[in-house]
Amino acid sequence: MKITVWNENRHEQTNPVVADIYPEGIHRAISAFLKEDGHDVRTVTLDEPEHGLTDEMLAETDVLVWWGHKAHDEVKDEIAEKVKQCVLDGMGLVVLHSGHFSKPFTKLMGTGCNLKWREADEKERLWVVDPTHPITEGLQQYIELEKEEMYGEHFDIPTPDELIFISWFEGGEVFRSGATFKRGRGKIFYFRPGHETYPTYHHKDIQKVIKNGIKWAANNNTPQPTRGNHQLIEYLSK
Amino acid sequence: MKITVWNENRHEQTNPVVADIYPEGIHRAISAFLKEDGHDVRTVTLDEPEHGLTDEMLAETDVLVWWGHKAHDEVKDEIAEKVKQCVLDGMGLVVLHSGHFSKPFTKLMGTGCNLKWREADEKERLWVVDPTHPITEGLQQYIELEKEEMYGEHFDIPTPDELIFISWFEGGEVFRSGATFKRGRGKIFYFRPGHETYPTYHHKDIQKVIKNGIKWAANNNTPQPTRGNHQLIEYLSK
Amino acid sequence: MKITVWNENRHEQTNPVVADIYPEGIHRAISAFLKEDGHDVRTVTLDEPEHGLTDEMLAETDVLVWWGHKAHDEVKDEIAEKVKQCVLDGMGLVVLHSGHFSKPFTKLMGTGCNLKWREADEKERLWVVDPTHPITEGLQQYIELEKEEMYGEHFDIPTPDELIFISWFEGGEVFRSGATFKRGRGKIFYFRPGHETYPTYHHKDIQKVIKNGIKWAANNNTPQPTRGNHQLIEYLSK
Amino acid sequence: MKITVWNENRHEQTNPVVADIYPEGIHRAISAFLKEDGHDVRTVTLDEPEHGLTDEMLAETDVLVWWGHKAHDEVKDEIAEKVKQCVLDGMGLVVLHSGHFSKPFTKLMGTGCNLKWREADEKERLWVVDPTHPITEGLQQYIELEKEEMYGEHFDIPTPDELIFISWFEGGEVFRSGATFKRGRGKIFYFRPGHETYPTYHHKDIQKVIKNGIKWAANNNTPQPTRGNHQLIEYLSK
Repeated sequence: MKITVWNENRHEQTNPVVADIYPEGIHRAISAFLKEDGHDVRTVTLDEPEHGLTDEMLAETDVLVWWGHKAHDEVKDEIAEKVKQCVLDGMGLVVLHSGHFSKPFTKLMGTGCNLKWREADEKERLWVVDPTHPITEGLQQYIELEKEEMYGEHFDIPTPDELIFISWFEGGEVFRSGATFKRGRGKIFYFRPGHETYPTYHHKDIQKVIKNGIKWAANNNTPQPTRGNHQLIEYLSK
Repeated sequence: MKITVWNENRHEQTNPVVADIYPEGIHRAISAFLKEDGHDVRTVTLDEPEHGLTDEMLAETDVLVWWGHKAHDEVKDEIAEKVKQCVLDGMGLVVLHSGHFSKPFTKLMGTGCNLKWREADEKERLWVVDPTHPITEGLQQYIELEKEEMYGEHFDIPTPDELIFISWFEGGEVFRSGATFKRGRGKIFYFRPGHETYPTYHHKDIQKVIKNGIKWAANNNTPQPTRGNHQLIEYLSK
Repeated sequence: MKITVWNENRHEQTNPVVADIYPEGIHRAISAFLKEDGHDVRTVTLDEPEHGLTDEMLAETDVLVWWGHKAHDEVKDEIAEKVKQCVLDGMGLVVLHSGHFSKPFTKLMGTGCNLKWREADEKERLWVVDPTHPITEGLQQYIELEKEEMYGEHFDIPTPDELIFISWFEGGEVFRSGATFKRGRGKIFYFRPGHETYPTYHHKDIQKVIKNGIKWAANNNTPQPTRGNHQLIEYLSK
Repeated sequence: MKITVWNENRHEQTNPVVADIYPEGIHRAISAFLKEDGHDVRTVTLDEPEHGLTDEMLAETDVLVWWGHKAHDEVKDEIAEKVKQCVLDGMGLVVLHSGHFSKPFTKLMGTGCNLKWREADEKERLWVVDPTHPITEGLQQYIELEKEEMYGEHFDIPTPDELIFISWFEGGEVFRSGATFKRGRGKIFYFRPGHETYPTYHHKDIQKVIKNGIKWAANNNTPQPTRGNHQLIEYLSK
């Protein structure tokens, strides 16, 4: 499978805490554990030409992973639009953490995608609420993260097609933290954890979920719908 | 309830067939039967300033009904964006027929919203597949329209929150022709029938569905979510 | 609207703590606030003949409210089966708290309906996750209950048609605590709170949710599907 | 993967038309094409002891395929209950055609599962309405069956988790003919076609769907939820 990991890659340049946790960037940390599954993984970042998302790159991507936060606005509209179109055409999309506010995700959702948030070094416990889902393979009934940023409801997304995880936060909130969405021929998995100042992407269960999410999001040869003007299939009785 | 019926109102000006069926425009035909329910109904059209959708008008609208077809592109982006925002804030939206390609609807869906279509004077039968839904109140188990435009699958929408009608077409296709979607605090009902060259909006059952849809889409005082940075509700144990 | 409140009415007879909170029984406490809305409300209990659920009583019930806990097994199978059939035929059903294990609910769900539980006098906070839903009318963004029994995931129910509340518990769990299900022509609302040793049904917001739930669950004249052998509607081309 | 194909195997004994199409029984016809995928496939039938569904057999079954029609009542309740429990515990279930009325399926759905039907040698066209779904892999946008029994709405099932196919029938009806349901840890796929007097299971695309459905329904190591009384995970603040 061909996977492209997209990262904004800004916090890593300016915040020593982040650089310390992810010395080669969040994208390379993610890429490293995805390669363990034998996938063909490439990484691209915001500051490359076309943000690294050229037509060739997108055409060769089965699943795109997206991490962005403080520079969502710098992503060009035409690139975001191209990503959206690729998803509608069948590319899988895994959106991580603050990517909830990214242009491709908000365009695909059609809603504000806003939420409550708080940075207070608090505990998060992600409960599995769909124990049939392949994205939960290999997990226990919950994942515990000692310190994370809080995201709280109401999360302004459309009703998810599937709700897989609900997070409990020590400070009193809950959050739909793992959810899937179908759009066109494409599948989208949103997964909440991964604030840049915590070593969340080094956690084995978080890695497992992202690996499972990628496997789930890939589309293998489903039908290509045709649309537009269409001739009669049956004779009319008149 | 305060209802605003928006109509493109172009076919009525140029096509005598349409003008004959709807001499005062599709908007006034719809407005007339909605008033039977005692609602406060206003009509606005594309060619008015701001397409009739001023801030004041939108602020006083509980449910907006939308009919558009050949001039979707002439709807200004900023007006479409305002309509979308009003829906996210709680305004109901009933989208009719070719409104599937309107800017407010496609922005709220996040997908292409394309479909198959054909004008062949063929029969449509709308089967009720959700007999619990208030939008079906007063109906029999199906509605039959002697002649309509065909719309066929695949209809490129997100999975509906509720699927209420499935259409059978004489020419061989099926279509998810009545579907609801929640976005933010707002409720959206898409209802397929209503090609301009047929007297569909004079059909009693079609009128019933639109009346029911409006009643369903209105939002009465549900919670206003707060979002953004949020203080701790609970003390942390540390 | 005609509402029947069914209560097991056993804890009230044996546990002075419960009798002190609900001196006339949980059923009469619920009945009292439902009458405020002008409904025609009757109460019935397990120990009446046919558990109070005669054919006449059920035929005259628009919405049935169910509270049961320690005597689920004493509900006769044929009565539970009749209740199920009434729901499929269009009667609304509001299932409260430990009613998750009642015969009518488990028969209608088709799953085990088990969950985690704990009695530890802990805080529950019910977050609204669907701010479009009429069941949330008049609420703030969450309801806080100082002391309640904990119910935790995984709650073994089918995917709800709508998820309205998610509970946060002080002890570390989350729960899908307000959910709707459509079955046949009937609508079901499950609402979690209401352990017998706490004054939960005296809480104004809890009362509001139950009132809203009843209003939502009532079915007004939706289509009666016909099924079985069916003659051709169209001529076949052969 | 270990697959068990269960067949009532009665029509094959008494109706020469059926025996002619499926000389070794529907179960062996299905088993034959499933083996092409390299699965370990066994067949069992109603008239074997315990209908062939011993504890050992069920324990070794990843996915169970079910075809039954005129002898649903002869399936013992305790066997049907065991099958249901296995599904809740994670076994996949693929229910074909008239299996909609089988005991395991109706118990898992909680509804009547009735529908309209007609035997008139009419054309069926199954349209793909979810082109993201792995069950549609390798298909075109529809499957056409020259002659089939008609099944029509309203189909009395709970809202499916996913709706994959909608059928068009020549005689005027539509049907939700491919749908998935999650129950406990188990996944269920209902697929409509397959009346015994037509060679439907010899059709390559129908075989493809059943193969895909089995692959989809298999559960690989998702979490085992624990339920019942549960100790505090967090200290309470009191």
